[in-house]
Amino acid sequence: MSLAKAYAAHSNTAPLVPFTFERRPVGAGDVRIEILYSGICHSDLHQARDDWGGAKYPMVPGHEIIGKVVEVGAEVTTLKVGDFAGVGCMVDSCRHCEACSHDLEQYCAEGATFTYNGTDRHTGETTQGGYSDHIVVEQRFVVKVSETLDLKAAAPLLCAGITTYSPLKHFKVGPGQKVGVIGLGGLGHMGVKFAKALGAQVVMITTTPEKGADATRLGADEVLVSRDPEQMKAHAGSFDFLLNTIPVGHDTNPYMGLLKRDATMCLVGVLTELDPPLTGVSVIFGRKHLTGSAIGGMAETQEMMDFCAEHGIVSDVEVINIQDVNEAWERMAKNDVRYRFVIDMASIKG
Amino acid sequence: MSLAKAYAAHSNTAPLVPFTFERRPVGAGDVRIEILYSGICHSDLHQARDDWGGAKYPMVPGHEIIGKVVEVGAEVTTLKVGDFAGVGCMVDSCRHCEACSHDLEQYCAEGATFTYNGTDRHTGETTQGGYSDHIVVEQRFVVKVSETLDLKAAAPLLCAGITTYSPLKHFKVGPGQKVGVIGLGGLGHMGVKFAKALGAQVVMITTTPEKGADATRLGADEVLVSRDPEQMKAHAGSFDFLLNTIPVGHDTNPYMGLLKRDATMCLVGVLTELDPPLTGVSVIFGRKHLTGSAIGGMAETQEMMDFCAEHGIVSDVEVINIQDVNEAWERMAKNDVRYRFVIDMASIKG
Repeated sequence: MSLAKAYAAHSNTAPLVPFTFERRPVGAGDVRIEILYSGICHSDLHQARDDWGGAKYPMVPGHEIIGKVVEVGAEVTTLKVGDFAGVGCMVDSCRHCEACSHDLEQYCAEGATFTYNGTDRHTGETTQGGYSDHIVVEQRFVVKVSETLDLKAAAPLLCAGITTYSPLKHFKVGPGQKVGVIGLGGLGHMGVKFAKALGAQVVMITTTPEKGADATRLGADEVLVSRDPEQMKAHAGSFDFLLNTIPVGHDTNPYMGLLKRDATMCLVGVLTELDPPLTGVSVIFGRKHLTGSAIGGMAETQEMMDFCAEHGIVSDVEVINIQDVNEAWERMAKNDVRYRFVIDMASIKG
Repeated sequence: MSLAKAYAAHSNTAPLVPFTFERRPVGAGDVRIEILYSGICHSDLHQARDDWGGAKYPMVPGHEIIGKVVEVGAEVTTLKVGDFAGVGCMVDSCRHCEACSHDLEQYCAEGATFTYNGTDRHTGETTQGGYSDHIVVEQRFVVKVSETLDLKAAAPLLCAGITTYSPLKHFKVGPGQKVGVIGLGGLGHMGVKFAKALGAQVVMITTTPEKGADATRLGADEVLVSRDPEQMKAHAGSFDFLLNTIPVGHDTNPYMGLLKRDATMCLVGVLTELDPPLTGVSVIFGRKHLTGSAIGGMAETQEMMDFCAEHGIVSDVEVINIQDVNEAWERMAKNDVRYRFVIDMASIKG
């Protein structure tokens, strides 16, 4: 056991406040990581506010974790003390189902164990996340992070990064393709960077014309303002793939109209109802696909971290101290961040 | 020009009544077909009632046509006088767009010309369908029909048949797969027959337990009553492919829960809103696909007719005289047909 300093929510209306709790002892397959940076994901807010139900308090959010390995169990082979390491949305899974055996732990038949607000398979206790000074995680769920990456800006790769990288890879985005990234936020700005690095022609699709210049800076070849019917018409039937990062229910029909025959739009942001509803016409005429994708498996997360090191890809971040986390959440709720807050966890020692 | 005897609707509330009009002259690439049988598709009713808008009257419905070639133009190479022939939902397209050049005329960039309530590309007049004694169609949009098939029962293959065959083939349904056909009507009963002939394990998914015995007779290996939560739970996550033939808006979420990871549900019946709406969760967790498919191209329609001749597949039909068409429509509206009405067009001469 080791005493952890953290910030936690104690109800769905309370602000985050300092909190101390015990981490589980380092088991034979575990590593203990001193957390250097912890990204703030929009789902942290959703879960702390219990927007999706099932919240357990006290809750220490955070699943975009970058840190340094400070202790390893006897059976750990993939990491050693001193390595830089990353932890994302999952810290465990059944490891034997069909999905786990295909390195798709995020689709584990028994349900993956989430980094916070989950149930620890070793202790039965509620898992606690990255707004904390350290964490203990089984080695399969820890990735190695190259020293060449800007570590604070690498934290969001563990969720925003893998969530966008995985579908772009799975659906084989590459050179010669016209790819649209819908929505320019924490996910969308990573989608643009990855789609560009994979060689596609990238169009940023946004409701906000003001974001255009920023999209170009991030690597977009073109900006399509979705509220402009003329622009939408000009791009109709022209996209090979759409990565839809919008985090709330919305009308997907106009976007389906942008796809070529047999092409796919992949949802990564919205969990709730697609309202107003999708129509049959939107998929039937052109045999179009609507699909979705959840984060990525651990092997693919490591692949992404290596891809980022190779291509010099990180998130655009604004670094804050843990003491300012409640204000950051308020600003995030208003989309007032370009594009991700990251907590410098050294501040928790102060 | 040739005078055609037919039955037509003259408004969205009027019954079908006898109607006489001129068919266009047989051009160099055209064939003239004496219609022997004309299937009654649910969309005939929708279009005559103007449920989808754009109805032009008088309207002669009918796009499941079986007949005999009685005249061919000078450039016709694929058919000869005396051949049995079929005409489906389309009678023309641009023939040069990307889709047409890939034998996918149904997705023609300029819009395929529908067999009725369309605009004839030769004459600019409204096209008139198969509730008629003959029709003139360009050879590319006419398929050959084997004499070995029961011709009256072959008529619905031209719409209900190809609409279900095409997605089963495109999404590679075959041996070793568990395939669900949702909805047991004109489309669904053909879906069961084709999925079985393609070697899949076929589960008929219906809200109506009484249809179970019939589904088994049609070839289903198993029946799943979708209103039974226990049965739905037992089949959760087990299907490789779902063919959804439900013709009206419905909740697709429970069906998405039946799919395996990365598997697809294909809509072929519903054009309108999927209400209550699909949720992001239904596609994101398991990277599942919702897609759709419209009829099939002409080359594939010919392939299907040949497949049917080889496997002895036809529709289950109830044959009526043209004079009874209004009563048949009323029964069809109440789903009181197993599974397709077909008009014996000899009755129009009487």
